Amino acid sequence: WMCFCKQEFSRFPTKTGRRSLSRSISQSSTDSYSSAASYTDSSDDETSPRDKTQINSKGSSDFCVKNIKQNEFGRREIEIAEQDMSALISLRKRAQSEKPLAGAKIVGCTHITAQTAVLIETLVALGAQCRWTACNIYSTQNEVAAALSETGVAVFAWKGESEDDFWWCIDRCVNTEGWQPNMILDDGGDLTHWVYKKYPNVFKKIRGIVEESVTGVHRLYQLSKAGKLCVPAMNVNDSVTKQKFDNLYCCRESILDGLKRTTDVMFGGKQVVICGYGEVGKGCCAALKALGAIVYVTEIDPICALQACMDGFRVVKLNEVIRQVDIIITCTGNKNVVTRDQLDRMKNGSIVCNMGHSNTEIDVASLRTPELTWERVRSQVDHVIWPDGKRVILLAEGRLLNLSCSTVPTFVLSITATTQALALIELYNAPEGRYKQDVYLLPKKMDEYVASLHLTTFDAHLTELTDDQAKYLGLNKNGPFKPNYYRY
Amino acid sequence: WMCFCKQEFSRFPTKTGRRSLSRSISQSSTDSYSSAASYTDSSDDETSPRDKTQINSKGSSDFCVKNIKQNEFGRREIEIAEQDMSALISLRKRAQSEKPLAGAKIVGCTHITAQTAVLIETLVALGAQCRWTACNIYSTQNEVAAALSETGVAVFAWKGESEDDFWWCIDRCVNTEGWQPNMILDDGGDLTHWVYKKYPNVFKKIRGIVEESVTGVHRLYQLSKAGKLCVPAMNVNDSVTKQKFDNLYCCRESILDGLKRTTDVMFGGKQVVICGYGEVGKGCCAALKALGAIVYVTEIDPICALQACMDGFRVVKLNEVIRQVDIIITCTGNKNVVTRDQLDRMKNGSIVCNMGHSNTEIDVASLRTPELTWERVRSQVDHVIWPDGKRVILLAEGRLLNLSCSTVPTFVLSITATTQALALIELYNAPEGRYKQDVYLLPKKMDEYVASLHLTTFDAHLTELTDDQAKYLGLNKNGPFKPNYYRY
Amino acid sequence: WMCFCKQEFSRFPTKTGRRSLSRSISQSSTDSYSSAASYTDSSDDETSPRDKTQINSKGSSDFCVKNIKQNEFGRREIEIAEQDMSALISLRKRAQSEKPLAGAKIVGCTHITAQTAVLIETLVALGAQCRWTACNIYSTQNEVAAALSETGVAVFAWKGESEDDFWWCIDRCVNTEGWQPNMILDDGGDLTHWVYKKYPNVFKKIRGIVEESVTGVHRLYQLSKAGKLCVPAMNVNDSVTKQKFDNLYCCRESILDGLKRTTDVMFGGKQVVICGYGEVGKGCCAALKALGAIVYVTEIDPICALQACMDGFRVVKLNEVIRQVDIIITCTGNKNVVTRDQLDRMKNGSIVCNMGHSNTEIDVASLRTPELTWERVRSQVDHVIWPDGKRVILLAEGRLLNLSCSTVPTFVLSITATTQALALIELYNAPEGRYKQDVYLLPKKMDEYVASLHLTTFDAHLTELTDDQAKYLGLNKNGPFKPNYYRY
Amino acid sequence: WMCFCKQEFSRFPTKTGRRSLSRSISQSSTDSYSSAASYTDSSDDETSPRDKTQINSKGSSDFCVKNIKQNEFGRREIEIAEQDMSALISLRKRAQSEKPLAGAKIVGCTHITAQTAVLIETLVALGAQCRWTACNIYSTQNEVAAALSETGVAVFAWKGESEDDFWWCIDRCVNTEGWQPNMILDDGGDLTHWVYKKYPNVFKKIRGIVEESVTGVHRLYQLSKAGKLCVPAMNVNDSVTKQKFDNLYCCRESILDGLKRTTDVMFGGKQVVICGYGEVGKGCCAALKALGAIVYVTEIDPICALQACMDGFRVVKLNEVIRQVDIIITCTGNKNVVTRDQLDRMKNGSIVCNMGHSNTEIDVASLRTPELTWERVRSQVDHVIWPDGKRVILLAEGRLLNLSCSTVPTFVLSITATTQALALIELYNAPEGRYKQDVYLLPKKMDEYVASLHLTTFDAHLTELTDDQAKYLGLNKNGPFKPNYYRY
Repeated sequence: WMCFCKQEFSRFPTKTGRRSLSRSISQSSTDSYSSAASYTDSSDDETSPRDKTQINSKGSSDFCVKNIKQNEFGRREIEIAEQDMSALISLRKRAQSEKPLAGAKIVGCTHITAQTAVLIETLVALGAQCRWTACNIYSTQNEVAAALSETGVAVFAWKGESEDDFWWCIDRCVNTEGWQPNMILDDGGDLTHWVYKKYPNVFKKIRGIVEESVTGVHRLYQLSKAGKLCVPAMNVNDSVTKQKFDNLYCCRESILDGLKRTTDVMFGGKQVVICGYGEVGKGCCAALKALGAIVYVTEIDPICALQACMDGFRVVKLNEVIRQVDIIITCTGNKNVVTRDQLDRMKNGSIVCNMGHSNTEIDVASLRTPELTWERVRSQVDHVIWPDGKRVILLAEGRLLNLSCSTVPTFVLSITATTQALALIELYNAPEGRYKQDVYLLPKKMDEYVASLHLTTFDAHLTELTDDQAKYLGLNKNGPFKPNYYRY
Repeated sequence: WMCFCKQEFSRFPTKTGRRSLSRSISQSSTDSYSSAASYTDSSDDETSPRDKTQINSKGSSDFCVKNIKQNEFGRREIEIAEQDMSALISLRKRAQSEKPLAGAKIVGCTHITAQTAVLIETLVALGAQCRWTACNIYSTQNEVAAALSETGVAVFAWKGESEDDFWWCIDRCVNTEGWQPNMILDDGGDLTHWVYKKYPNVFKKIRGIVEESVTGVHRLYQLSKAGKLCVPAMNVNDSVTKQKFDNLYCCRESILDGLKRTTDVMFGGKQVVICGYGEVGKGCCAALKALGAIVYVTEIDPICALQACMDGFRVVKLNEVIRQVDIIITCTGNKNVVTRDQLDRMKNGSIVCNMGHSNTEIDVASLRTPELTWERVRSQVDHVIWPDGKRVILLAEGRLLNLSCSTVPTFVLSITATTQALALIELYNAPEGRYKQDVYLLPKKMDEYVASLHLTTFDAHLTELTDDQAKYLGLNKNGPFKPNYYRY
Repeated sequence: WMCFCKQEFSRFPTKTGRRSLSRSISQSSTDSYSSAASYTDSSDDETSPRDKTQINSKGSSDFCVKNIKQNEFGRREIEIAEQDMSALISLRKRAQSEKPLAGAKIVGCTHITAQTAVLIETLVALGAQCRWTACNIYSTQNEVAAALSETGVAVFAWKGESEDDFWWCIDRCVNTEGWQPNMILDDGGDLTHWVYKKYPNVFKKIRGIVEESVTGVHRLYQLSKAGKLCVPAMNVNDSVTKQKFDNLYCCRESILDGLKRTTDVMFGGKQVVICGYGEVGKGCCAALKALGAIVYVTEIDPICALQACMDGFRVVKLNEVIRQVDIIITCTGNKNVVTRDQLDRMKNGSIVCNMGHSNTEIDVASLRTPELTWERVRSQVDHVIWPDGKRVILLAEGRLLNLSCSTVPTFVLSITATTQALALIELYNAPEGRYKQDVYLLPKKMDEYVASLHLTTFDAHLTELTDDQAKYLGLNKNGPFKPNYYRY
Repeated sequence: WMCFCKQEFSRFPTKTGRRSLSRSISQSSTDSYSSAASYTDSSDDETSPRDKTQINSKGSSDFCVKNIKQNEFGRREIEIAEQDMSALISLRKRAQSEKPLAGAKIVGCTHITAQTAVLIETLVALGAQCRWTACNIYSTQNEVAAALSETGVAVFAWKGESEDDFWWCIDRCVNTEGWQPNMILDDGGDLTHWVYKKYPNVFKKIRGIVEESVTGVHRLYQLSKAGKLCVPAMNVNDSVTKQKFDNLYCCRESILDGLKRTTDVMFGGKQVVICGYGEVGKGCCAALKALGAIVYVTEIDPICALQACMDGFRVVKLNEVIRQVDIIITCTGNKNVVTRDQLDRMKNGSIVCNMGHSNTEIDVASLRTPELTWERVRSQVDHVIWPDGKRVILLAEGRLLNLSCSTVPTFVLSITATTQALALIELYNAPEGRYKQDVYLLPKKMDEYVASLHLTTFDAHLTELTDDQAKYLGLNKNGPFKPNYYRY
C-alpha cells in the first residue's frame, strides 16, 4: 500500500501545530455551547476516564466516557435535538424497508453533541455499526457521550481531553480486535491523518471518506493533487445547501446575536462598515440594514462591489469611514484587514469584531503593546484603552464572533448532518467505478434531496412537474433541476 | 394642608400589594442586569447596611450603602455609562455659565444604576442637592451606590433590601434634619406616596413632581381627577421621544435578542403570530419580517389592522393560525390573549412569549394543572409538556420577555434620563402660574430638545429654517415644529 | 343672517387668485387621469354644453353635461370602479333596512370621476337627493357625468369648463326651483364660498358641511376662528385613515411610479436625498431604500430627525451631499428648500422633484434665467442645461410629482369617499347640540368604521374582545379602541 | 470549408419560424421604446428606404436608413445615452494610447438604439471599422441610425422593415466590395446564420463571434456539440454581471413599473404568488415584499424552495392559494404554469402576468373560447370576462411584462455593451490557440473588469490587496478574485 506519503504529512500539524489547531477549534466549540443547559456536576470527579472501569447496562465496556451514569440526562438532550432534526428522522423511516448502510462499519470523528448523536443513531438505524471519537478536546457533551455508549455505540471522548487523550481516543476507535472500518466520517482530518499514518492497510477496505471541514477538505485536495489519495472522498463542506446556511442565512442571524450578547449595543442608527461582501458579508449587511444601521462595505472584487451597490450599500475604502463608524465587522478571509493604524483612528467606544475566518483579519497582535491597556469587561469582551482614554471594544480577541459569542441553530446542524448521512450512503452504495480516488462534491440531486427533507420544517409544498412540462424543459421530474454551474 | 386624602390612598398598595408590585418590577430589573459585570464579591458580608457604620473619604456618613469601599469599581461603571450618555454631558456644560438647578433640593427614588448615577451627577452639576433611594429592592448596583455616596450624594439603597428596608430608606431620604426637598423625582410613585402619607407638609415647599413610570403616572392622574394633587406634576412617560424608543425602536431589537438568548431559535422561515399591532407589535413585526420570518398579526382595532395590511402582514384571528405557527408573541396590554384552549392546539416545539405588559397576556395559570409537566431547561425557559409528549416552550413564565431576557441599551436610558432632567429644570424654573396642580406632558419644545441632544450620537446634522421660511410656515425658528396632535 | 362676512371673503381668491388655484388643482387632476381609458371622442363636438338641449331617457333635462349619449361608456367605468370600492357597496346594503340619509338634500362639488360616481350613487341609495358640480375645470370624466345624469342625479359639469362656466355650474346646483340643500359636500371650498356669498339664507337649513381638502379645511378654520362659521363642519382631511393612506402608504408607491414613468431611472445604488421626514418623506424613504437606493434625509425637527436615524438614514444638511446625490426629492411643505445655488452644484444628470405641497419647494423660478437652456424631453420632464453642458432633470416643473406623474389607486379614493359618506350621515343624523358651529374631526369610532369596511379587501379578520377583556381594558367592545391622542 | 452543414440548419427557423421569432422579439423591443421621445415625424414619408438615394455630408452613400437628415436628432439622443454609459467612454480613453481593435472589421446585428450607437462609436474609437444592421424589424430608432450613418458607419436598418428587408439589410452588411469582416457581433444568431448559409468562406477570416442572446447562444452550443462551429465564439449572455443585472436587479424594478403602468394597482396588502424562485423570481419577490405585498412562492426545485423559506416566503402549490391571491406572476421558463382550470378559480379583479420567458407560461390560448369575453381596456391590458361577470386582468397577452410594459435602464444596457466590447477585444487580440472552435464564457477577469468600469457610476471605491495579502490569499492583485464556480 503505497500511496501514503511521509513528506505529505510532514506538512501536517506537528504537536505544536496540532495544539494550536485544536485550540482554535475548541475555543469556538466550547463557547458555542456555553449557553446550553448543564444538568450534571462533573467537577466532583477528577479521575481520568482512561483510569476508570465503566460498564453499560448491556454489560459492554467498549467505550470510554466521563460517566456512563449520566446517560439519562444525555438521552433527554438527544430527544430535544431530534425535534429539530426531522430530516434525519425521516431518513430513519427508510430503515423499516431497506438498510442502505447494512454492513457499513463507520469510524467517526466529530464534535460529540446531541445533534451529532441524532446523526450517529440514524446511521445505526440505517444498518451501520459505529465507533466514534471527538474532533475537539473541549466540545464533547459528556452526558450525550454517555447516552450513546449506553445504547451500544463505542464512544471514546470526554470534555477536557489532553492532547495525548485525543490521539489515544482516535486510536481506540480504529484499532480494535475483530472490527475494521469500511467508511470514515471526519471533521478536520485528524482521524484520516491518523489512519494514513498508523494503519495505512485499513484503506484497503475503506469505501470512502466523508469530510466536513474546510481544513479537512483542503488536506484531501492536497492529497489528491499529489496523487496520494487512495479512496474516494466526498467534500460535504461545499454543497449548496450547507454553504448557504452556514454562511448567508446563519450569519444573518448570528451577527446580531453575537453583538447583542457581548455589548448590548443598539443597532438603530449605528454606522457600520462590513469588510467583504461574500456570503458572510451579505448576511451581516442584510441583518444590520434591516435593523436600522447605516452600512458601508469594503470590497476588493468589483463584481461583489457592484452587488453591494445595487443592494443599497456605499462601497468605500476603510480609511474613508474609519473615523466615523461605530462598528467594524470583518468578513473577508484575508489577513490584516484592520490594521493598528486604522484601530488608532477609530472613535471612542467603537466596536471591532470578526465574522470571517480564523483570527487573522484584525491585527490583534499589534494591540498588545505597552502603551495600550486591555481591560476584560465581560467574557469575550475587551476594552482596549489608548493613552488619551479612548476605548475600542474588541470582541472574542478577533476570533470568530459567531462561533465564540452566539450559537448555531440545530436546524443548520441538521442540514450538515443530513448531508453527511447521504454522502455516506452514496459512497457506500455506489457501483464500482462511479467514484475514483479523488475528491467529489455531493451530486446535485442529493443536494436537492437534503433540501427537500428540510422543507417540512417550514410546511413548504413543492410543485411537481407534469410529464409534459418535464419534456418541455428537458428535465427529469425528480431532478436534478439545475445545471452544475447554477449560481442560486 | 388639606389635599391629602386617606381614602385616595386606601386604593394604594397594601403591604401585600406593595410586595407584588415590587416583585413584578424587581424581577425585570434583576434580570435586565444579569449580564452586567460584577466586579466585587458581596456575598462574604451578610451584615445589614443599616447595622454598619460607614464614612466616606470626605468624612460624611449621611448615606447607607452596601460597602462604601466599592466606590472605585462603581466609578468605572459610571464612566463607561457616560460614554453613551453624551446628552447629559452636554447639559452639564451649561452649568459652566448658569446653574438652572441652583437651590433645588431634589429627593429621588429610581433604579440605582450607572445610568441613573450619570443623571444624578448631572443634576448636581446643574446646581442641585440630591438625596436618593431605590425604587426597587433588587435593582441597585451596590458599587454605583458607593461611588455616589463617596462624592457626597446621600444615597440610601442596596441590592436585596427587605420591604422594611425599602420604606426605611425612603424615609431617611425625606426626613432629615435641616434639609427639606423642593422637587421630587419618582419612578413608580412610592416616594410620592410616602410623602403624601407621612410628611404632607413637605408639599408646601415642593415645586413639582417628575414621574417616569406608567404606574406612577396613573396614580397621579387619579389624584388629579380626584382634586387631590397639590403640586404640578410632569408625566415624562408619554413624551414622544421616550415612547418611540421604549416601544417601537427598543422592542424591534429586544424581541430578537430575547428569543435568541433563551431559545437559539433560527428566525428564517419561521411562522410567527404577533398579537397586537401597536408600537410594540410594530417593532416586533418589523424585526422578525426583516430576518425572514413569516409574520401574522391579530388586532382588535381596525385602524391598526389596516396598517398591518399595508405593511405586508396578514391579519388573522389567532385560531386561524394557531396550529401552524412556530412562535406566538403577545403585545396587546390585554389579558388572556392566549388561552389554555389555544395552547392545547399549538405545535410541538412552538414558542410562546409576552412583550406586552405585566404577565396577564398568556393564561399561564391555566398551564399549572396536573396533567401537564413543567421542565425548566434554562433560566427563563420552561418546557410545558402535554401527556402526548408535545412540548410548548414558555419564556419568562409569561412575564415581559424584553425585561426578563434582554437588556435595555444605555442610549434608551439616556433619553429617559435627559427627559427627567429637563422636566426638573422646567418645573423648578417655571414662572408662577404656568403650571397648576395638575399633570402635564413635557412641552413639545423640550421633547424636541431632548431629541436634538441625542442627534450627536448619530452625527446627524439638523437643517435650520431661514427667517423667510420660518415666516412662510408660521413657525419659530427654534421650534416647536409640530402641532400637539402630530402623530409622528 | 349675520355670520357672513365680506372682509372674511376679501381674503378669498379674487378672480386671478381663483384662476391660479383652479389651475394648480386642475393640472394635477388632468395628469392623474392621463392614463385612464378614453372611449369616446369628444373632440368632434365644439358646442358648449350650456348651449345644448339634452334630455335623459327618463325625460329629465335637469343636468348639463358634455353628451348624455355617452352614458353607457360611463356606466362601464363606474362598474369597474365599484369593484375596488366594496366599502361603499357594503354601506349600500344598509339601505335595505334603513335609509340614514332619507330626506337629505346634498349639494356636492368634487372631482367628477368614476370613483366619485360610486360615492354619489351610494348617497342616493342611502336615501339622499343629490345635485353635483365639479371642483375643477379639467378633471371631469364626461362619460361618467353622463351616466350619473342618465340615472337622475343633477350633474352640472364637463371637462374643459371656462371659469365662467365653473361658477355657472355651481350656481345651477344650488339655485333651483323647489329644492333647497340641507347638506354640503365640498372639496376646495368653492361651493361653500358661493353659498356664503350669494345665498347666505340657505345656511339656515344646512345641517352641516363636509370638507375634504387642505385648502377648504383651512378656510373653515379661519371662518370658525373669526366666529363666522354658522353651521357645523366636518374636517375629513385629517382623519387618521385618510392621512396615512394619502401620505405614507400612497407616497411609498407613487414616488417609484412617478420617477420611473418620467425618467426610467434605475433605483439600485442611486444616492438620494429626501428633504423632510414627515409621513410623505417616510413613505419615499422606505420605498427607495427597499429598492436599493442609498438615502439621506434632511430635517428641521429633531424628533423626526431622530426617527430617521433609527430607521437607518443619515441625517445631513443638503449642502453636505448636494454634489454627490443622483436624486433630490422635497417633502417638506416649505419653500425654497432647494435653491438655485444648490441646483448649480448638482451633478450632471441628477434629478430633482417635489412630493411635498404646491410648487414652492424647489426654487424653479430661479432656473428661468437666460444662461440656462430648458429642453422638454418628455411630458413633465425638462432638462435644464447649464453653460458647461451639465443637465439637471426637473420633473413636473417642480409641481407635485405624485399628482402629475403617477396615478392614485382607487383603493385610496375609496377610503376618502367612505369617510365623506360617513361624515354626511353623522352630521345629518346627529342629535341637536352634539355639534356646534365649529369644525370637527371625524369621531374616532367612525374613523375605525371606515378602516373596518376596507379590511375585507385584504381578507383581514379582526379579533373581537371578550366581555371580560373589554372590562379589563375599560373599553367598549365596538370601539373606539384608542384615546384621541394616540399616534398610530 | 466544410463545417457548414445543411442538416444543422434544417432545424433553423423556416420563413414562418423566423417570422414568429422576429415577432416575439420585436414585440418587446417596440414596446420597450414606447416611452422614448420621438422628435421627428416619419409618418409623412412612405417611400421604402431601399428606393431612396441618400448621401451623408461626407459624400458617402454606403448606408440605408429612413432619413439621413434626422441625424442631428439622433446625435442628441446618443449624447444623452453617453451620460449613463461612462464605462464605454472610459474604454475610449484607452484609444488615445492604443487601438486594441485596429484592423478589426466588425459586422454587427443588434437592436439599433442610442445605447448601441454608443457601443458602435466606441468600437470605432478603438480602431475598428463597422457595418451594422438591425436584429429586429421594429426596434430601430431611425434618428440614431441616421446619426451613425452621418459619421461614416455603414448602417442598414429602419423601423418597420419587412422580412425581405431584414435579410436584404443583413446581406448588404456582409456582402460588400473590398471589405470582408473578421469579427461578428450578433444578437439572436440571424447574422451568423446568414453568413453560414450564404458566405461560408467568410469564416476563414473571422477571428470570432460574440453572441448576446439566449437563442443565439443556444444555436452556437448546438453547432459546437455537432462539431460544426468553425470559429471561437464568446457567450456574453451568461457573464455574471450581465445575468445579475438582466435578471435579479432589473426585474426587481421592472415588475413594479410594469404593474403600475398597466393597472395602477396598489401593492400594499396585496396577496401575490410568484411562480419560480430563480433570479427573476427573487427580484420580483424582493420588490413586492418591500412594498408591503404578501408574497407566496411556488417552486419545483427544493434548493430554491428552501431559499424562499429562509427569505421569508411561504412555499405553496398554486392551487392552495389560487382563490385568494390578487396577482399571479410567472417566472419559471416553463409552460402552462397557470392553466385554464386555475384561471377559472381566480378572484374577480385579479391580475395575471408573465416575467419568465416567451409567452408559454400562462395558458393564454385556453382563454380564447367563446364563453369568455375579452375587453381591451388599455394598451397591453385585457379584461377577460367570465359568464358570471368575473374579470381577470391579463397583461401583455401573457408575453413578457418587463419588455412589453416597462423600460430597461440605460445602465443595464451599458453593462451588456461593455461586455460585448471587451469580448470583441479579447477574441481579436487573443494569441493563436487560446481559443478553439468552441463556445466560451467571458474570462472571469474580464467580467470583473466590466464590473469595475461601472463602479464609478456609484462613486464606489475598491480596496486593493497589499502584496502581503495577495500572497496570503494566493491571488493576483488584479484578479481574478474568485474561482469559476463561485456563486456570488
